[in-house]
Amino acid sequence: MSLDALVFDAYGTLFDVHSVASRCESFWPGKGAALSTAWRVKQLEYTWQRSLMQRYAPFSQVTREALAYACEALGLQLTVTQMEALMGEYQMLSAYPDVASALEKLSGHKTAILTNGSPDMIEPLVKQSGLSFDAVLSVEAVKIFKPAPQVYALARTQLTAPANRIGFVSSNGWDALGAKSFGFTVYWINRAGAPVDRLGFKPDAILKSLGDLPEVLL
Amino acid sequence: MSLDALVFDAYGTLFDVHSVASRCESFWPGKGAALSTAWRVKQLEYTWQRSLMQRYAPFSQVTREALAYACEALGLQLTVTQMEALMGEYQMLSAYPDVASALEKLSGHKTAILTNGSPDMIEPLVKQSGLSFDAVLSVEAVKIFKPAPQVYALARTQLTAPANRIGFVSSNGWDALGAKSFGFTVYWINRAGAPVDRLGFKPDAILKSLGDLPEVLL
Repeated sequence: MSLDALVFDAYGTLFDVHSVASRCESFWPGKGAALSTAWRVKQLEYTWQRSLMQRYAPFSQVTREALAYACEALGLQLTVTQMEALMGEYQMLSAYPDVASALEKLSGHKTAILTNGSPDMIEPLVKQSGLSFDAVLSVEAVKIFKPAPQVYALARTQLTAPANRIGFVSSNGWDALGAKSFGFTVYWINRAGAPVDRLGFKPDAILKSLGDLPEVLL
Repeated sequence: MSLDALVFDAYGTLFDVHSVASRCESFWPGKGAALSTAWRVKQLEYTWQRSLMQRYAPFSQVTREALAYACEALGLQLTVTQMEALMGEYQMLSAYPDVASALEKLSGHKTAILTNGSPDMIEPLVKQSGLSFDAVLSVEAVKIFKPAPQVYALARTQLTAPANRIGFVSSNGWDALGAKSFGFTVYWINRAGAPVDRLGFKPDAILKSLGDLPEVLL
Protein backbone atom coordinates (compact mmCIF):
# COMPACT_ATOMS: atom_id res chain seq x y z
CA MET A 1 0.00 0.00 0.00
CA SER A 2 1.45 3.32 -0.97
CA LEU A 3 0.79 6.04 1.56
CA ASP A 4 0.05 9.76 1.16
CA ALA A 5 1.23 10.82 4.60
CA LEU A 6 2.86 9.61 7.82
CA VAL A 7 1.55 10.62 11.21
CA PHE A 8 3.68 10.12 14.32
CA ASP A 9 2.83 10.01 17.99
CA ALA A 10 5.28 12.16 19.99
CA TYR A 11 5.96 10.95 23.56
CA GLY A 12 7.61 7.54 23.62
CA THR A 13 7.56 7.29 19.82
CA LEU A 14 9.73 10.16 18.58
CA PHE A 15 10.85 11.51 21.96
CA ASP A 16 12.36 9.50 24.80
CA VAL A 17 10.77 10.40 28.12
CA HIS A 18 13.57 8.70 30.07
CA SER A 19 15.24 11.97 31.04
CA VAL A 20 12.17 12.79 33.14
CA ALA A 21 12.86 9.69 35.26
CA SER A 22 16.50 10.76 35.73
CA ARG A 23 15.37 14.16 36.99
CA CYS A 24 12.90 12.47 39.38
CA GLU A 25 15.77 10.32 40.67
CA SER A 26 17.93 13.40 41.24
CA PHE A 27 15.21 14.94 43.43
CA TRP A 28 14.22 11.76 45.31
CA PRO A 29 17.13 9.28 45.27
CA GLY A 30 15.93 5.68 45.11
CA LYS A 31 12.39 6.74 44.18
CA GLY A 32 12.90 8.07 40.63
CA ALA A 33 11.74 4.97 38.77
CA ALA A 34 8.72 4.36 41.02
CA LEU A 35 7.68 8.01 40.78
CA SER A 36 8.06 8.32 37.05
CA THR A 37 6.09 5.10 36.50
CA ALA A 38 3.29 6.19 38.85
CA TRP A 39 3.27 9.63 37.22
CA ARG A 40 2.98 8.24 33.69
CA VAL A 41 0.24 5.76 34.68
CA LYS A 42 -1.82 8.52 36.32
CA GLN A 43 -1.18 10.93 33.45
CA LEU A 44 -2.71 8.47 30.97
CA GLU A 45 -5.57 7.50 33.30
CA TYR A 46 -6.49 11.15 33.68
CA THR A 47 -6.55 11.64 29.90
CA TRP A 48 -9.01 8.76 29.53
CA GLN A 49 -11.10 9.60 32.58
CA ARG A 50 -11.38 13.31 31.81
CA SER A 51 -12.28 12.51 28.20
CA LEU A 52 -15.06 10.15 29.32
CA MET A 53 -16.26 12.65 31.94
CA GLN A 54 -16.38 15.27 29.17
CA ARG A 55 -14.04 17.38 31.31
CA TYR A 56 -11.08 17.92 29.00
CA ALA A 57 -8.12 19.85 30.37
CA PRO A 58 -4.86 20.58 28.51
CA PHE A 59 -2.18 17.89 28.76
CA SER A 60 0.13 20.27 30.62
CA GLN A 61 -2.48 20.59 33.38
CA VAL A 62 -3.21 16.84 33.41
CA THR A 63 0.52 16.14 33.61
CA ARG A 64 0.98 18.49 36.57
CA GLU A 65 -2.04 17.04 38.36
CA ALA A 66 -0.80 13.49 37.79
CA LEU A 67 2.59 14.44 39.24
CA ALA A 68 0.96 15.94 42.35
CA TYR A 69 -1.09 12.75 42.81
CA ALA A 70 1.88 10.44 42.29
CA CYS A 71 4.05 12.35 44.77
CA GLU A 72 1.31 12.28 47.40
CA ALA A 73 0.72 8.55 46.82
CA LEU A 74 4.44 7.87 47.35
CA GLY A 75 4.73 10.21 50.32
CA LEU A 76 7.09 12.60 48.54
CA GLN A 77 7.04 16.33 49.18
CA LEU A 78 6.85 18.28 45.92
CA THR A 79 7.86 21.93 45.74
CA VAL A 80 6.71 24.27 43.01
CA THR A 81 10.33 24.60 41.89
CA GLN A 82 10.61 20.84 41.50
CA MET A 83 7.33 20.67 39.57
CA GLU A 84 8.52 23.42 37.23
CA ALA A 85 11.84 21.64 36.68
CA LEU A 86 10.10 18.34 35.90
CA MET A 87 7.61 19.98 33.54
CA GLY A 88 10.56 21.76 31.93
CA GLU A 89 12.10 18.36 31.12
CA TYR A 90 9.13 17.67 28.86
CA GLN A 91 10.23 20.54 26.62
CA MET A 92 13.79 19.22 26.34
CA LEU A 93 13.31 15.50 25.66
CA SER A 94 15.80 13.82 23.35
CA ALA A 95 14.58 12.29 20.12
CA TYR A 96 15.41 8.56 19.90
CA PRO A 97 18.72 8.08 18.06
CA ASP A 98 17.03 6.47 15.02
CA VAL A 99 14.47 9.24 14.45
CA ALA A 100 16.46 11.80 12.43
CA SER A 101 17.77 9.30 9.87
CA ALA A 102 14.39 7.55 9.54
CA LEU A 103 12.64 10.87 8.88
CA GLU A 104 15.30 11.80 6.34
CA LYS A 105 14.80 8.54 4.42
CA LEU A 106 11.04 9.10 4.50
CA SER A 107 11.27 12.70 3.29
CA GLY A 108 9.19 11.89 0.21
CA HIS A 109 6.14 11.65 2.45
CA LYS A 110 4.07 14.38 4.00
CA THR A 111 4.67 14.07 7.76
CA ALA A 112 2.81 15.18 10.86
CA ILE A 113 2.83 14.76 14.63
CA LEU A 114 -0.49 13.91 16.30
CA THR A 115 -0.16 14.22 20.05
CA ASN A 116 -2.04 14.45 23.34
CA GLY A 117 0.43 17.20 24.19
CA SER A 118 -0.96 20.69 24.41
CA PRO A 119 0.71 23.35 22.23
CA ASP A 120 2.51 24.84 25.26
CA MET A 121 4.32 21.50 25.68
CA ILE A 122 4.77 20.15 22.16
CA GLU A 123 5.75 23.28 20.24
CA PRO A 124 8.89 24.13 22.26
CA LEU A 125 9.85 20.44 22.20
CA VAL A 126 9.66 20.13 18.42
CA LYS A 127 11.45 23.42 17.98
CA GLN A 128 14.42 22.46 20.13
CA SER A 129 14.65 19.02 18.48
CA GLY A 130 15.55 20.46 15.08
CA LEU A 131 13.15 17.97 13.42
CA SER A 132 10.67 19.31 10.93
CA PHE A 133 7.13 18.20 10.06
CA ASP A 134 4.46 19.46 7.70
CA ALA A 135 2.06 19.75 10.64
CA VAL A 136 2.12 19.46 14.42
CA LEU A 137 -1.40 18.55 15.52
CA SER A 138 -2.56 18.63 19.13
CA VAL A 139 -5.75 17.12 20.56
CA GLU A 140 -6.30 20.61 21.98
CA ALA A 141 -8.13 21.36 18.72
CA VAL A 142 -10.83 18.77 19.49
CA LYS A 143 -10.68 18.82 23.31
CA ILE A 144 -10.70 15.07 23.79
CA PHE A 145 -7.71 12.73 24.18
CA LYS A 146 -6.58 9.62 22.29
CA PRO A 147 -7.89 7.05 21.44
CA ALA A 148 -11.13 8.94 20.59
CA PRO A 149 -11.81 8.87 16.83
CA GLN A 150 -12.21 12.67 16.81
CA VAL A 151 -8.44 12.87 17.39
CA TYR A 152 -7.50 10.71 14.42
CA ALA A 153 -10.10 12.52 12.30
CA LEU A 154 -8.17 15.71 12.97
CA ALA A 155 -5.14 14.27 11.17
CA ARG A 156 -7.21 12.98 8.28
CA THR A 157 -8.82 16.38 7.81
CA GLN A 158 -5.58 18.32 8.08
CA LEU A 159 -3.74 16.00 5.71
CA THR A 160 -6.68 15.67 3.27
CA ALA A 161 -6.01 12.01 2.58
CA PRO A 162 -8.21 8.91 2.89
CA ALA A 163 -7.71 7.22 6.27
CA ASN A 164 -6.14 4.03 4.90
CA ARG A 165 -3.57 6.04 2.92
CA ILE A 166 -2.35 7.62 6.14
CA GLY A 167 0.36 5.65 7.93
CA PHE A 168 0.14 6.06 11.68
CA VAL A 169 3.19 5.35 13.82
CA SER A 170 3.03 4.94 17.60
CA SER A 171 4.84 3.06 20.33
CA ASN A 172 1.72 3.06 22.51
CA GLY A 173 -0.22 -0.11 21.72
CA TRP A 174 -3.62 1.35 22.61
CA ASP A 175 -2.91 4.46 20.48
CA ALA A 176 -1.89 2.25 17.54
CA LEU A 177 -5.13 0.26 17.87
CA GLY A 178 -7.28 3.37 18.31
CA ALA A 179 -5.79 4.60 15.02
CA LYS A 180 -6.46 1.20 13.42
CA SER A 181 -10.06 1.29 14.65
CA PHE A 182 -10.34 4.68 12.92
CA GLY A 183 -9.03 3.25 9.66
CA PHE A 184 -5.38 4.30 9.42
CA THR A 185 -2.64 1.95 8.23
CA VAL A 186 -0.82 1.33 11.49
CA TYR A 187 2.80 0.65 12.44
CA TRP A 188 3.25 -0.22 16.09
CA ILE A 189 6.78 0.48 17.34
CA ASN A 190 6.98 -2.19 20.03
CA ARG A 191 10.26 -1.20 21.66
CA ALA A 192 9.50 -3.08 24.87
CA GLY A 193 8.38 -6.38 23.34
CA ALA A 194 4.91 -6.04 24.92
CA PRO A 195 1.93 -8.23 23.98
CA VAL A 196 -0.60 -6.83 21.52
CA ASP A 197 -3.46 -5.19 23.41
CA ARG A 198 -6.80 -6.99 23.19
CA LEU A 199 -8.95 -4.19 21.81
CA GLY A 200 -10.44 -5.95 18.81
CA PHE A 201 -7.84 -4.76 16.25
CA LYS A 202 -4.31 -5.64 15.12
CA PRO A 203 -1.62 -3.26 13.86
CA ASP A 204 -0.72 -3.68 10.18
CA ALA A 205 2.92 -4.15 11.16
CA ILE A 206 4.89 -4.44 14.39
CA LEU A 207 8.41 -2.99 14.34
CA LYS A 208 11.12 -3.10 16.98
CA SER A 209 12.31 0.41 16.32
CA LEU A 210 11.54 3.44 14.23
CA GLY A 211 14.70 2.71 12.29
CA ASP A 212 12.91 -0.25 10.67
CA LEU A 213 10.15 1.93 9.22
CA PRO A 214 11.83 3.18 6.01
CA GLU A 215 12.60 -0.36 4.87
CA VAL A 216 9.01 -1.46 5.43
CA LEU A 217 7.60 1.54 3.59
CA LEU A 218 10.01 2.05 0.70
CA MET B 1 -29.03 16.94 52.60
CA SER B 2 -31.71 14.28 52.68
CA LEU B 3 -31.41 11.78 49.88
CA ASP B 4 -34.03 9.96 47.80
CA ALA B 5 -31.87 7.00 46.82
CA LEU B 6 -28.48 5.39 47.30
CA VAL B 7 -26.50 4.00 44.38
CA PHE B 8 -23.58 1.65 44.98
CA ASP B 9 -20.68 0.61 42.82
CA ALA B 10 -20.22 -3.18 42.95
CA TYR B 11 -16.62 -4.40 42.52
CA GLY B 12 -14.36 -3.20 45.33
CA THR B 13 -17.20 -1.29 47.00
CA LEU B 14 -19.76 -3.95 47.95
CA PHE B 15 -17.82 -7.02 46.83
CA ASP B 16 -14.24 -7.89 47.72
CA VAL B 17 -12.29 -8.98 44.65
CA HIS B 18 -9.49 -10.43 46.81
CA SER B 19 -10.58 -14.03 46.25
CA VAL B 20 -9.66 -13.65 42.58
CA ALA B 21 -6.06 -12.98 43.62
CA SER B 22 -6.05 -16.09 45.80
CA ARG B 23 -7.21 -18.20 42.88
CA CYS B 24 -4.48 -16.68 40.67
CA GLU B 25 -1.93 -17.58 43.34
CA SER B 26 -3.19 -21.18 43.44
CA PHE B 27 -2.58 -21.51 39.69
CA TRP B 28 0.75 -19.63 39.54
CA PRO B 29 2.44 -19.76 42.96
CA GLY B 30 4.41 -16.62 43.68
CA LYS B 31 2.75 -14.72 40.83
CA GLY B 32 -0.82 -14.33 42.11
CA ALA B 33 -0.50 -10.77 43.37
CA ALA B 34 1.40 -9.53 40.31
CA LEU B 35 -1.07 -11.18 37.95
CA SER B 36 -4.18 -9.96 39.67
CA THR B 37 -2.81 -6.40 39.80
CA ALA B 38 -1.84 -6.47 36.11
CA TRP B 39 -5.22 -7.98 35.24
CA ARG B 40 -7.18 -5.32 37.13
CA VAL B 41 -5.11 -2.47 35.66
CA LYS B 42 -5.65 -3.75 32.11
CA GLN B 43 -9.34 -4.44 32.73
CA LEU B 44 -9.91 -0.80 33.68
CA GLU B 45 -7.72 0.53 30.87
CA TYR B 46 -9.70 -1.46 28.34
CA THR B 47 -13.00 -0.07 29.67
CA TRP B 48 -11.71 3.47 29.17
CA GLN B 49 -9.97 2.83 25.86
CA ARG B 50 -12.88 0.92 24.31
CA SER B 51 -15.31 3.60 25.47
CA LEU B 52 -13.21 6.33 23.87
CA MET B 53 -12.74 4.26 20.70
CA GLN B 54 -16.54 3.86 20.60
CA ARG B 55 -15.95 0.08 20.60
CA TYR B 56 -17.88 -1.04 23.66
CA ALA B 57 -17.73 -4.73 24.55
CA PRO B 58 -19.38 -6.36 27.61
CA PHE B 59 -17.34 -6.32 30.81
CA SER B 60 -17.14 -10.13 30.78
CA GLN B 61 -15.35 -9.98 27.43
CA VAL B 62 -13.12 -7.08 28.51
CA THR B 63 -12.23 -8.98 31.68
CA ARG B 64 -11.30 -12.13 29.74
CA GLU B 65 -9.23 -10.13 27.25
CA ALA B 66 -7.44 -8.30 30.07
CA LEU B 67 -6.60 -11.64 31.70
CA ALA B 68 -5.18 -13.00 28.45
CA TYR B 69 -3.03 -9.88 28.05
CA ALA B 70 -1.82 -9.93 31.65
CA CYS B 71 -0.83 -13.61 31.46
CA GLU B 72 1.06 -13.06 28.22
CA ALA B 73 2.84 -10.00 29.66
CA LEU B 74 3.97 -12.05 32.68
CA GLY B 75 4.92 -15.09 30.60
CA LEU B 76 2.23 -17.30 32.17
CA GLN B 77 0.46 -20.00 30.18
CA LEU B 78 -3.32 -19.71 30.56
CA THR B 79 -5.60 -22.63 29.79
CA VAL B 80 -9.29 -22.27 29.00
CA THR B 81 -10.08 -24.19 32.19
CA GLN B 82 -8.08 -21.72 34.24
CA MET B 83 -9.75 -18.76 32.55
CA GLU B 84 -13.18 -20.24 33.24
CA ALA B 85 -12.27 -20.85 36.88
CA LEU B 86 -11.02 -17.28 37.31
CA MET B 87 -14.08 -15.79 35.61
CA GLY B 88 -16.21 -18.02 37.82
CA GLU B 89 -14.66 -16.37 40.89
CA TYR B 90 -16.25 -13.11 39.82
CA GLN B 91 -19.69 -14.66 40.35
CA MET B 92 -18.82 -15.82 43.87
CA LEU B 93 -17.13 -12.81 45.43
CA SER B 94 -17.75 -12.17 49.12
CA ALA B 95 -19.45 -8.99 50.20
CA TYR B 96 -17.30 -6.93 52.59
CA PRO B 97 -18.21 -7.82 56.20
CA ASP B 98 -19.77 -4.39 56.86
CA VAL B 99 -22.09 -4.40 53.84
CA ALA B 100 -25.09 -6.38 55.12
CA SER B 101 -25.49 -4.41 58.36
CA ALA B 102 -24.97 -1.05 56.61
CA LEU B 103 -27.64 -1.87 54.03
CA GLU B 104 -30.01 -2.96 56.79
CA LYS B 105 -29.56 0.33 58.65
CA LEU B 106 -30.14 2.21 55.38
CA SER B 107 -33.27 0.25 54.47
CA GLY B 108 -35.40 3.41 54.52
CA HIS B 109 -33.71 4.43 51.25
CA LYS B 110 -34.31 3.21 47.76
CA THR B 111 -31.08 1.38 46.76
CA ALA B 112 -29.46 0.40 43.49
CA ILE B 113 -26.23 -1.02 42.12
CA LEU B 114 -24.65 0.81 39.18
CA THR B 115 -21.85 -1.26 37.71
CA ASN B 116 -19.54 -1.74 34.75
CA GLY B 117 -20.35 -5.44 35.11
CA SER B 118 -22.41 -6.98 32.35
CA PRO B 119 -25.63 -8.77 33.42
CA ASP B 120 -23.99 -12.18 32.90
CA MET B 121 -21.46 -11.27 35.63
CA ILE B 122 -23.40 -9.10 38.07
CA GLU B 123 -26.73 -10.89 38.28
CA PRO B 124 -25.41 -14.27 39.51
CA LEU B 125 -23.14 -12.39 41.94
CA VAL B 126 -25.94 -10.38 43.52
CA LYS B 127 -28.17 -13.45 43.67
CA GLN B 128 -25.64 -15.58 45.53
CA SER B 129 -24.83 -12.72 47.93
CA GLY B 130 -28.33 -12.70 49.43
CA LEU B 131 -28.31 -8.87 49.35
CA SER B 132 -31.30 -7.13 47.84
CA PHE B 133 -31.59 -3.86 45.90
CA ASP B 134 -34.43 -2.01 44.23
CA ALA B 135 -32.47 -2.04 40.97
CA VAL B 136 -29.30 -3.57 39.54
CA LEU B 137 -28.16 -1.33 36.71
CA SER B 138 -25.44 -2.28 34.24
CA VAL B 139 -23.63 0.01 31.79
CA GLU B 140 -24.67 -2.58 29.20
CA ALA B 141 -27.85 -0.51 28.80
CA VAL B 142 -25.87 2.49 27.49
CA LYS B 143 -22.87 0.66 25.98
CA ILE B 144 -20.22 2.91 27.44
CA PHE B 145 -18.25 2.48 30.68
CA LYS B 146 -17.77 4.67 33.75
CA PRO B 147 -16.99 7.54 34.23
CA ALA B 148 -19.07 8.64 31.19
CA PRO B 149 -22.04 10.79 32.24
CA GLN B 150 -24.40 8.52 30.25
CA VAL B 151 -23.77 5.84 32.90
CA TYR B 152 -24.73 8.03 35.85
CA ALA B 153 -27.71 9.35 33.89
CA LEU B 154 -28.97 5.78 33.70
CA ALA B 155 -29.28 5.68 37.50
CA ARG B 156 -30.93 9.08 37.67
CA THR B 157 -33.51 8.05 35.06
CA GLN B 158 -34.22 4.68 36.64
CA LEU B 159 -34.54 6.14 40.12
CA THR B 160 -36.48 9.22 38.97
CA ALA B 161 -34.75 11.53 41.43
CA PRO B 162 -32.79 14.78 40.93
CA ALA B 163 -29.06 14.07 40.67
CA ASN B 164 -28.07 15.83 43.90
CA ARG B 165 -30.67 13.83 45.86
CA ILE B 166 -29.00 10.61 44.79
CA GLY B 167 -26.18 9.45 47.06
CA PHE B 168 -23.47 7.64 45.12
CA VAL B 169 -21.10 5.30 46.95
CA SER B 170 -17.89 3.98 45.41
CA SER B 171 -14.45 2.90 46.53
CA ASN B 172 -12.98 3.83 43.13
CA GLY B 173 -11.82 7.44 43.34
CA TRP B 174 -12.28 8.15 39.63
CA ASP B 175 -15.79 6.63 39.72
CA ALA B 176 -16.69 8.77 42.73
CA LEU B 177 -15.46 11.90 40.93
CA GLY B 178 -17.17 10.96 37.67
CA ALA B 179 -20.41 10.73 39.68
CA LYS B 180 -19.65 14.08 41.33
CA SER B 181 -19.02 15.67 37.93
CA PHE B 182 -22.46 14.39 36.91
CA GLY B 183 -24.08 15.98 39.96
CA PHE B 184 -24.61 13.17 42.48
CA THR B 185 -23.91 13.56 46.21
CA VAL B 186 -20.81 11.42 46.54
CA TYR B 187 -19.37 9.23 49.31
CA TRP B 188 -15.93 7.90 48.51
CA ILE B 189 -15.08 4.74 50.47
CA ASN B 190 -11.33 5.17 50.69
CA ARG B 191 -10.37 1.79 52.15
CA ALA B 192 -6.76 2.08 51.03
CA GLY B 193 -6.06 5.62 52.26
CA ALA B 194 -5.29 6.79 48.71
CA PRO B 195 -4.92 10.46 47.71
CA VAL B 196 -7.92 12.18 46.13
CA ASP B 197 -7.64 11.99 42.35
CA ARG B 198 -6.98 15.31 40.61
CA LEU B 199 -9.93 15.40 38.24
CA GLY B 200 -11.37 18.79 39.10
CA PHE B 201 -13.90 17.58 41.72
CA LYS B 202 -13.97 16.51 45.36
CA PRO B 203 -16.22 13.87 46.95
CA ASP B 204 -18.82 15.24 49.40
CA ALA B 205 -17.47 12.90 52.08
CA ILE B 206 -14.57 10.45 52.41
CA LEU B 207 -15.23 7.37 54.57
CA LYS B 208 -12.86 4.63 55.67
CA SER B 209 -15.43 1.89 55.29
CA LEU B 210 -19.00 1.30 54.21
CA GLY B 211 -19.83 0.72 57.87
CA ASP B 212 -19.45 4.48 58.44
CA LEU B 213 -22.12 5.37 55.90
CA PRO B 214 -25.29 4.95 58.03
CA GLU B 215 -23.97 7.31 60.70
CA VAL B 216 -23.15 9.97 58.12
CA LEU B 217 -26.53 9.68 56.44
CA LEU B 218 -28.96 9.17 59.33
